[in-house]
Amino acid sequence: MRWGDIGDLPCSVARALSVVGDRWTLLILRDTFLGVRRFEDFQRDLGTTRHRLSARLRKLVAHGILDRVPYSRHPPRFEYRLTEKGRDLYPVVVSLTRWGDRWMAGRAGPPIELVHRVCGRTAMPTLTCPECGDPVAARDMLVRPGPGLGPGLGPGLGKRRHAAQEDRR
Amino acid sequence: MRWGDIGDLPCSVARALSVVGDRWTLLILRDTFLGVRRFEDFQRDLGTTRHRLSARLRKLVAHGILDRVPYSRHPPRFEYRLTEKGRDLYPVVVSLTRWGDRWMAGRAGPPIELVHRVCGRTAMPTLTCPECGDPVAARDMLVRPGPGLGPGLGPGLGKRRHAAQEDRR
Repeated sequence: MRWGDIGDLPCSVARALSVVGDRWTLLILRDTFLGVRRFEDFQRDLGTTRHRLSARLRKLVAHGILDRVPYSRHPPRFEYRLTEKGRDLYPVVVSLTRWGDRWMAGRAGPPIELVHRVCGRTAMPTLTCPECGDPVAARDMLVRPGPGLGPGLGPGLGKRRHAAQEDRR
Repeated sequence: MRWGDIGDLPCSVARALSVVGDRWTLLILRDTFLGVRRFEDFQRDLGTTRHRLSARLRKLVAHGILDRVPYSRHPPRFEYRLTEKGRDLYPVVVSLTRWGDRWMAGRAGPPIELVHRVCGRTAMPTLTCPECGDPVAARDMLVRPGPGLGPGLGPGLGKRRHAAQEDRR
């Protein structure tokens, strides 16, 4: 299978990755959540080529993840702002941050800290069950076919086992 | 900047992506959370070449995300199991699933559903503040330099603004 076909699979991870599953794209998104909005600022942060950066930004705009908004008319200048669809990628970026903090930061500790504006405390958001409020890990969740799976089984579902179940043994 | 240098940046997202920021790698991880463990099963699910799959699996083993465990001695056969470091990537995979369900699934609905084993309800885990328990979105969080940032500012932090603040205007 080629990458271009992955977005057609009945799998939300594959579909999401067909849009944001590129390392530079995810770093651009990280920057947008840190408040970066302008081409030159992205370029300085990422140290990547104008060509590569333009292609990624264009794709993010085409998919409705970023809006390209004018901020100057003379000369014409644009900045990139997260749409609702884009802001909804925050959990992906936070989850990568959390994992990087835990497993890749080393003795120096996390490069940044997050503060929850509502309660005022330093906190790295965690995954919880919206029904009961308990924190969840892989082994707490079971997977079952949903309405969008269709008659064929999706990737990984041919087995219908969940890693969580296996890991209990 | 070339991709090989990204892992050295004082940014947990960049560091995480230097290990798992590859679309095939993330699909392999998705499969492992669905219970897939064997080379042939990964290959059938992903429809990718043996060469590409081997390279990705080797990297995941080298980084301690998967363990390569013998399950047959004659002939010698191995399967791949998530380590603790690997299982800790579950929030990344769930966050991609959640976003794909919401923005890419279309009218058919989500291809799979998750059930919280503890409370028995169908639920897609959400990001919450571990201190106060409230659900969090980008605009609820502030960012500030952490111990590992060092004397220079990390990417995006040159601005020290957070998208959340900007978007309030």
